[in-house]
Amino acid sequence: MSEMVRIALDAMGGDNAPGEIVKGAVQAANEDGRIKLFFVGRQEAIAAELEKYTYHPEQVEIVNATEVIETGEPPVMAIRKKKESSMVKALMMVKEGRCDAYVSAGSTGATLVGGQILVGRIKGVERPPLAPMIPTASGASLLLDCGANVDAKPSNLVQFAKMGSVYMKNVLGIDRPTVGLLNIGAEEEKGNALVKEVFPLLEHCPDINFIGNMEPKDALSGKADVIVSEAFAGNILLKSYEATAGILLREVKSCMKSTLKTKIGALLIKKKLKDTLGKFDASEYGGAPLLGLNGLVVKAHGSSKAKEIHNACLQCVTFKEQRICDQIKEIIRVKDE
Amino acid sequence: MSEMVRIALDAMGGDNAPGEIVKGAVQAANEDGRIKLFFVGRQEAIAAELEKYTYHPEQVEIVNATEVIETGEPPVMAIRKKKESSMVKALMMVKEGRCDAYVSAGSTGATLVGGQILVGRIKGVERPPLAPMIPTASGASLLLDCGANVDAKPSNLVQFAKMGSVYMKNVLGIDRPTVGLLNIGAEEEKGNALVKEVFPLLEHCPDINFIGNMEPKDALSGKADVIVSEAFAGNILLKSYEATAGILLREVKSCMKSTLKTKIGALLIKKKLKDTLGKFDASEYGGAPLLGLNGLVVKAHGSSKAKEIHNACLQCVTFKEQRICDQIKEIIRVKDE
Repeated sequence: MSEMVRIALDAMGGDNAPGEIVKGAVQAANEDGRIKLFFVGRQEAIAAELEKYTYHPEQVEIVNATEVIETGEPPVMAIRKKKESSMVKALMMVKEGRCDAYVSAGSTGATLVGGQILVGRIKGVERPPLAPMIPTASGASLLLDCGANVDAKPSNLVQFAKMGSVYMKNVLGIDRPTVGLLNIGAEEEKGNALVKEVFPLLEHCPDINFIGNMEPKDALSGKADVIVSEAFAGNILLKSYEATAGILLREVKSCMKSTLKTKIGALLIKKKLKDTLGKFDASEYGGAPLLGLNGLVVKAHGSSKAKEIHNACLQCVTFKEQRICDQIKEIIRVKDE
Repeated sequence: MSEMVRIALDAMGGDNAPGEIVKGAVQAANEDGRIKLFFVGRQEAIAAELEKYTYHPEQVEIVNATEVIETGEPPVMAIRKKKESSMVKALMMVKEGRCDAYVSAGSTGATLVGGQILVGRIKGVERPPLAPMIPTASGASLLLDCGANVDAKPSNLVQFAKMGSVYMKNVLGIDRPTVGLLNIGAEEEKGNALVKEVFPLLEHCPDINFIGNMEPKDALSGKADVIVSEAFAGNILLKSYEATAGILLREVKSCMKSTLKTKIGALLIKKKLKDTLGKFDASEYGGAPLLGLNGLVVKAHGSSKAKEIHNACLQCVTFKEQRICDQIKEIIRVKDE
């Protein structure tokens, strides 16, 4: 039997905690016997949720944590002061090697800070990027960095490209994943000082398969498996994409409900439309890993439902089985030293 | 009778030139007797297009230009060398006061460079931003800078806020237009070094109605009339928005065509859906002005059809009648000196 994958879940983080966190994680554990869940948070609240489901008791443990870090709290302060919070206790379990992975739908800032301070970076990794999968017209691409490190340096982006390539190769099974640089034009001379400096570095980096600049339309069409960006622009890309999709789908829905005629039309299209648009559902990918740490730290959307948490837990299994941390260590250390 | 508004059209610029350029501009002239069109480009090609329409001859002139600046050409070189191009000749007509405005669907880079070098900046304007209207869930907002000046300084962004406010007040008639700063979080302490420095400057700027940071979802919901950004992030926002809308609408359309059932459904919804999504059609706004120059320079999409050119010409009338250049001179000079 293969090794267990021990996941520390911040049971109190996110808009739908602990209900959806417990539901999604238990589903994943029932599906995959290698998963061992540690629900970190308020004992009674977690136990009450767990009572609703059937599961193998040896796959589930509760770790009591009396404090909760709220979304609005200044992250550094929160991580330093709230030692009894679900987030800090869950992160410490990864740091101390008692867990392989951490999953939270709570404060992004606190997870990013906590991941770096408590779990710690792999030696040689300058900045750990937040790396969500984004659904594209032709599949999905990994976008990094999408918000962990603002004001990045060129060498940071080269590391993002390497780590992203390791991820796409091993987690998604893509041979020689293509790497694109997010930019505001396709030609090499386009862009700001940062991307102009990064372009030749990526071009001459032997560990990656660089294919050039990506405008948002190229990135969202899926022209590259890995999209490298500094955090500010990457975050704007991701959030614009989510916001536009949200606005347009709301408009389409409200239009379909507007008259009797359109309601009948909607009935005929609904199922097919749902299937078609399903592939743009980011929750399929189960949160974004913070790459380059001594353990897996996964940030799920604040609004995550059971499905995203379920997928986040399954992602942890692949991440461990494919030894992503070791492979990142290798590509960063060996090649950079 | 009010003064004529003289527009120099780059008749050779864009994917659909000169056909759609001539068509759209003539439509605008027929609608508004104050418009005087100068079609700059290859005499015979323009004349051949003009033959298709009825118009008042005193409203239309052809200015022969033998060269064309292509989209791929390095902009600075193209503007310097191709003195006989439609773009350079049209821009010179604005510089020399023979025209009030310039409209082109050609190379963005060449229009930006040519606008700055040939037409020139208003005294005191540090960087002229490209300022498109973007359709939002609740109307439309002005986004600036969306690509003219990368690596901007904080003081540039304060000027963008002022110029954008002048534009929205006078062109759109919005009293005390709200100004938001594009950012990756809502709180004041969020963002990169640039936006952190800009935030207090905007907060304490007496000429504008600053309402805080805008994440993409806020910007695209229409929370602020003016969205201030440096060019790289602004361009990523705009392009992501356009790309996402394009991808999703293609998916919805292809889904509707997929089976007999969905085709019938589509027939019932089509008209309503077109109306609903029509408000997200950027061509309604007729291109993006490059603000802060000694004259109006409007960049229309490369793929512009007659409708966008028509609207761009009408925009020129409002721009002149509302004395936008004078008002920008005033807000930049008086307040900055």
